Amino acid sequence: MKPTHIEHIGIAVKDLESSIQFYEEKMGLFCYRVEEVPEQKVKTAFFKIGQTKIELLESTSPDGPVGKFVEKHGEGLHHLAFAVEDLQENLAELEEKEVGLIDRTPRIGAESLNIAFLHPKSTFGVLTELCEQTK
Amino acid sequence: MKPTHIEHIGIAVKDLESSIQFYEEKMGLFCYRVEEVPEQKVKTAFFKIGQTKIELLESTSPDGPVGKFVEKHGEGLHHLAFAVEDLQENLAELEEKEVGLIDRTPRIGAESLNIAFLHPKSTFGVLTELCEQTK
Repeated sequence: MKPTHIEHIGIAVKDLESSIQFYEEKMGLFCYRVEEVPEQKVKTAFFKIGQTKIELLESTSPDGPVGKFVEKHGEGLHHLAFAVEDLQENLAELEEKEVGLIDRTPRIGAESLNIAFLHPKSTFGVLTELCEQTK
Repeated sequence: MKPTHIEHIGIAVKDLESSIQFYEEKMGLFCYRVEEVPEQKVKTAFFKIGQTKIELLESTSPDGPVGKFVEKHGEGLHHLAFAVEDLQENLAELEEKEVGLIDRTPRIGAESLNIAFLHPKSTFGVLTELCEQTK
């Protein structure tokens, strides 16, 4: 595997509107997109900074993954996403190297990327996502 | 404020050696530097990926900030650092905008950067660092 850059950093928030306002008014970033991802039970907001995006995640349901995270840990850093070029091949390589995978095959995530999550038990506590641009 | 890119992502780990091995052998990154920062009570390891660095942090003392974090939350994503161009001016702007600051004036961090932390109570739970290249 040879990730090219940090695709995005996922941040769990309780209230998307007020956190968008914080990143725009205090941190000087611009929210270029708000998108709901129903199968993840989240509303997301994206900011671009250099090569990387910040993805704010507000849960749309207490039983969604982000809702459970916020319930347990509070708001804060949620996951780290690496950009890779051949996601399926990278997943096969990681599986061979005995890294625990949440997704063994790519699925479609926000912004129509192909994505897959690695298990935090295999990644020293960091919920890790791999992202590939769709062709 | 107008941050230029994500300078680094700080990840708290229990054991620097085994986590370096993970990022090198499984994630395909290269650790270019290991540095102890005594005043923060951490040993750090750095990896470059695109514009951004990953900074692994192992506490050298249970009463250091990273030691306390790991005790409370376990290993995982610890802080997010933005690169800025005039740190002192940005801190003054944030203070005027009533963002809580841990450091009101820059101090020297790992890799000899000028750094300052914002308070997670002001930043929706994300321990946020600003970094400026020293001139």
